[in-house]
Amino acid sequence: MSCVGEPRVLIAGASGYAGAIAARLIDRHPHFALGPVTSRSDAGRRVDSLYPHHRVTATLEELSLDRHGDVEAAIVAYPHGAAAPVVAELRGRGVKVVDLSADFRLHDRAVYEAFYVPHAAPELLAGAVYGLTELRREAIAAADLVANPGCFPTATLLALAPLARAGLIADLVVDAKTGVSGAGRAATEATHFVAMAENVKAYKVGAHRHTPEIDQELAELGAPVATTFVPHLVPLDEGELVSCYVTPPEPVPQAALDALYADAYAGEPFVHVVPDPPGVRDVRESNHCHIHARVDPRTGKLIVFAAIDNLWKGTSSQAVQNLNLMFGRPESEGLG
Amino acid sequence: MSCVGEPRVLIAGASGYAGAIAARLIDRHPHFALGPVTSRSDAGRRVDSLYPHHRVTATLEELSLDRHGDVEAAIVAYPHGAAAPVVAELRGRGVKVVDLSADFRLHDRAVYEAFYVPHAAPELLAGAVYGLTELRREAIAAADLVANPGCFPTATLLALAPLARAGLIADLVVDAKTGVSGAGRAATEATHFVAMAENVKAYKVGAHRHTPEIDQELAELGAPVATTFVPHLVPLDEGELVSCYVTPPEPVPQAALDALYADAYAGEPFVHVVPDPPGVRDVRESNHCHIHARVDPRTGKLIVFAAIDNLWKGTSSQAVQNLNLMFGRPESEGLG
Amino acid sequence: MSCVGEPRVLIAGASGYAGAIAARLIDRHPHFALGPVTSRSDAGRRVDSLYPHHRVTATLEELSLDRHGDVEAAIVAYPHGAAAPVVAELRGRGVKVVDLSADFRLHDRAVYEAFYVPHAAPELLAGAVYGLTELRREAIAAADLVANPGCFPTATLLALAPLARAGLIADLVVDAKTGVSGAGRAATEATHFVAMAENVKAYKVGAHRHTPEIDQELAELGAPVATTFVPHLVPLDEGELVSCYVTPPEPVPQAALDALYADAYAGEPFVHVVPDPPGVRDVRESNHCHIHARVDPRTGKLIVFAAIDNLWKGTSSQAVQNLNLMFGRPESEGLG
Amino acid sequence: MSCVGEPRVLIAGASGYAGAIAARLIDRHPHFALGPVTSRSDAGRRVDSLYPHHRVTATLEELSLDRHGDVEAAIVAYPHGAAAPVVAELRGRGVKVVDLSADFRLHDRAVYEAFYVPHAAPELLAGAVYGLTELRREAIAAADLVANPGCFPTATLLALAPLARAGLIADLVVDAKTGVSGAGRAATEATHFVAMAENVKAYKVGAHRHTPEIDQELAELGAPVATTFVPHLVPLDEGELVSCYVTPPEPVPQAALDALYADAYAGEPFVHVVPDPPGVRDVRESNHCHIHARVDPRTGKLIVFAAIDNLWKGTSSQAVQNLNLMFGRPESEGLG
Repeated sequence: MSCVGEPRVLIAGASGYAGAIAARLIDRHPHFALGPVTSRSDAGRRVDSLYPHHRVTATLEELSLDRHGDVEAAIVAYPHGAAAPVVAELRGRGVKVVDLSADFRLHDRAVYEAFYVPHAAPELLAGAVYGLTELRREAIAAADLVANPGCFPTATLLALAPLARAGLIADLVVDAKTGVSGAGRAATEATHFVAMAENVKAYKVGAHRHTPEIDQELAELGAPVATTFVPHLVPLDEGELVSCYVTPPEPVPQAALDALYADAYAGEPFVHVVPDPPGVRDVRESNHCHIHARVDPRTGKLIVFAAIDNLWKGTSSQAVQNLNLMFGRPESEGLG
Repeated sequence: MSCVGEPRVLIAGASGYAGAIAARLIDRHPHFALGPVTSRSDAGRRVDSLYPHHRVTATLEELSLDRHGDVEAAIVAYPHGAAAPVVAELRGRGVKVVDLSADFRLHDRAVYEAFYVPHAAPELLAGAVYGLTELRREAIAAADLVANPGCFPTATLLALAPLARAGLIADLVVDAKTGVSGAGRAATEATHFVAMAENVKAYKVGAHRHTPEIDQELAELGAPVATTFVPHLVPLDEGELVSCYVTPPEPVPQAALDALYADAYAGEPFVHVVPDPPGVRDVRESNHCHIHARVDPRTGKLIVFAAIDNLWKGTSSQAVQNLNLMFGRPESEGLG
Repeated sequence: MSCVGEPRVLIAGASGYAGAIAARLIDRHPHFALGPVTSRSDAGRRVDSLYPHHRVTATLEELSLDRHGDVEAAIVAYPHGAAAPVVAELRGRGVKVVDLSADFRLHDRAVYEAFYVPHAAPELLAGAVYGLTELRREAIAAADLVANPGCFPTATLLALAPLARAGLIADLVVDAKTGVSGAGRAATEATHFVAMAENVKAYKVGAHRHTPEIDQELAELGAPVATTFVPHLVPLDEGELVSCYVTPPEPVPQAALDALYADAYAGEPFVHVVPDPPGVRDVRESNHCHIHARVDPRTGKLIVFAAIDNLWKGTSSQAVQNLNLMFGRPESEGLG
Repeated sequence: MSCVGEPRVLIAGASGYAGAIAARLIDRHPHFALGPVTSRSDAGRRVDSLYPHHRVTATLEELSLDRHGDVEAAIVAYPHGAAAPVVAELRGRGVKVVDLSADFRLHDRAVYEAFYVPHAAPELLAGAVYGLTELRREAIAAADLVANPGCFPTATLLALAPLARAGLIADLVVDAKTGVSGAGRAATEATHFVAMAENVKAYKVGAHRHTPEIDQELAELGAPVATTFVPHLVPLDEGELVSCYVTPPEPVPQAALDALYADAYAGEPFVHVVPDPPGVRDVRESNHCHIHARVDPRTGKLIVFAAIDNLWKGTSSQAVQNLNLMFGRPESEGLG
């Protein structure tokens, strides 16, 4: 039994990479208590038998909301489509939810259904808040349902928000590089060690489902643009770098660019403007994001890099960052 | 003593990655014979003590053209600036040269000197042929001095030549990913295993010296554009992928793009248009280049990928491909 | 139709790592011609759609000996147990066979069946020759069925043969390290990139099926010993290093050890005694084996290292080396 | 100025891998405060400019004990030989020291000087405590000078202490695998990314300086044995696995082995007996050690694996574990 004032957090789908990290972070969190951890495929196994380094000793169970629904909060780490009905039932029981899937990220149901599947709980779309913490702190703090952003949108939007707000994006190409964990835990021909060692390649060219999410949010920030987005797999496990190539409507001096970014992220605990192009190793297994912006003197293009850990700031640690806000806690709690 | 009809090839600078591969290819070549292999830093060591897998047993010597200049051909693998005087002296002795440095790639001496150093042999610039084999076969066959292209220009120009010739490049971004061998054999903080394992990062943003080379050649092909070029280091040893983002002056249907590339590279022994985005692993330690072109249906951008091995087609095996032409041999000889 | 004098070689099981390399080597071989290439799982696909870098354009078919049995030779790359009946049928048709499985390696049927499965063609055991080329050249040249050794036995026996023959092995520990390709092409939790990046671990401790094969051959060489054998997975794709720790019955001086190895492998085209501990990178994608032997001055133990590529000398290139002998060709043909 | 009761800890040599991790751990420690951080080579730079992911903002200074000696404790991360005089001066000022070098690990000055250099402070040897925490808790708690063990001895001794105490080690081979960080921060031919990618190799065969340290401690535990010890480099950054092959004086049943290890490490916060061979990934960037012991049923050998992070439990986090004991703090504080 947990103490009064220590909200219990259900992790639904804790056998995947993202759910397991969420379980780890909640398990060690000074304010929250780890509630049930669930998995269809691995029920009966302890989390640390799958992920020894997370050191979570809880045993995975099959999800049963009748038994597991008595919690204050939930992080849902289900595939898109499968998440919506579980989220709806949790919300029906008054549970605050951070959903890691794409099911509640896109405001426009038609866009969602064009890229994914028929929506199982469209009535919740209006109330869901897009959970890129640094862009929507107040709304997140007031929300009961937060749609946690995709990893690529997280990095891309942090990289571009200052330019979008300033009206400096006329055209945009985003070339992303992600570690193999971005392809998920499923063992496939593509995720075999031998297929990716000494390799780098693009995938889902011009067709990645994170693209409409990027466009939606850039438009809300003031930059209604159609993004050319291409992700690449690189031979590392965790980490993501986005290289953003922006054509501005007018020339931007380097000093102005520097000031824009310094102002935008002054005082942010997790977003850091750094003096050199960031490496993904610099932010591994952390909630931090490193950003670097540069004017190409020959072409006038603005080149902005953002590095995150795709599974942490790109997914699970940002979920906890959001949960902190939803429960009135310091944003950085348990993320140190 | 070599047989009549078996031209001896000097490798100047055979202790670096590129020179050693050139030595290996010449050593096993059915037509050429390996002449002296030279190195300042490692004179007295056998090549296979530095690179066991190349299996070249020749011993490195300090270069002395009085002793070593009696050859039919030379591959010069010296740093830019240091190459020009050696090339000049070799040419003065009538030796045919493939130069791997940047010294004879840029037709405009002023551009060279802006990006590099004062030129030591500008009188040779006019006669040097830019050695991207697939674009200049006839000129290379007739040349005595071939300026072997940089690795990034090789991949980029093979990716973009069909578009450039067709007048389809209005704006251009090139995002390149290269293995760590691209940074050379020098042991530095940046090339330490621990610095690059689990890492990916951009370098020389908007300032890489291969950029003017790309612009020069695109202009000659019909596309006078200023390229935004950004290279990234990825955690693998050999291999290079360029992802080219082209804004065309008018919409291009996928079928037209397919036809353009199929026509351009039909019958090429080393350039292959492939049905999926290529991985660098597919071309490792080979002279092959894999290309894939796609229209982004949402934005109309043309996205073209080219994968090569930066040290092979990007440097040394292309040098041998050129040498074959210069001596009237089949282009693929010794590259199988 | 193949020319007279160009024997056609069937590759049965050409969609796995080993079979595909065998197909590549035969496809480029100056003497043999590539016959049918077969696969249950990938029939209808071209080999180069699975393994672009091998550049084999042949299309995989389901094996049918009525259609495919009309060849001079076959390399069978089937799992143990599945190989024996196919080998038996091929032999019945007079086809010379190199079998990559374990089915014909162990002379003692009972030992085979204790470690594997009931044997489907025990009548062929007596005539099968254990195909470690350097140890059995004459028998291989005269054989119609060669049981190609396992990768670990190949490296271990090359490392230890000189000591075994000299009666210098009183006790033996073999600690092996292999790249992930050693675990095969099946995509599993254990071969996922994320599971093996930044990892190293032992597997099948004291229970690896290559152990009785090592013991059998050491006994034949003169060292009847029970080997303690432990393989480890290391984060690389191809390559294998065995570190052998030998307790000799009496002290052995370093000079004697050096002479023993120099004599044993003088003139060998593929086995090289090297002056420093070998790296697996030195022999990657080759038929070479690098060996280094050292006396530990503190303990008197003899420490011998052997590095091979587990898929080449450890499997497929050794199969071609054997096939060369079986057809009276130079042993190194097509392996350069 | 630090609060009363918050001891300040000097980190001498904080620009190396080990010193920087020590700085990170102390910087976030709930009880200690980070004092001066020093470096000869990088004075003037911030620690996070060298190691962004450690997020230590302190600026490196040249060590000056007149300015820096006013601290309660110090972790000295100097090369062997260079450490002793600094440790001596710190002890002279009453500062408690954990020394990461080898200078105070060997009780026998002659052995030290045979393997290293003349000793600069032999008078301190008698009072130094060998800091393998789990083996010497009481002595460490009472010590003013702790000689932090080497990474290989840490893993090896944790693996073997139960056997040594039980008199079960008649003969011993230790085959160790370490990530490249074990070779230090110096950029050399051997630590270049290209040299180690896709590689594995032994080094310092029979001559590694950690060997006498292992022998000394095994003897104190009851097993006077000469260890055959061979380290290997594997292509990963942090992590170390030792595979220990023990010949027992008499047969040991698996059940007895299991009971021995379960008893030895019951209740240990950082040492865990695990049911399968451990991977180094399981303990990455942590103070944990995973151990697995198995009887080889064919040979009777005892095979024991221990996995640690060479820079954490193998060096810096164990130093903090020891510092906790020296200051009467809970052993796990700041290591969670």
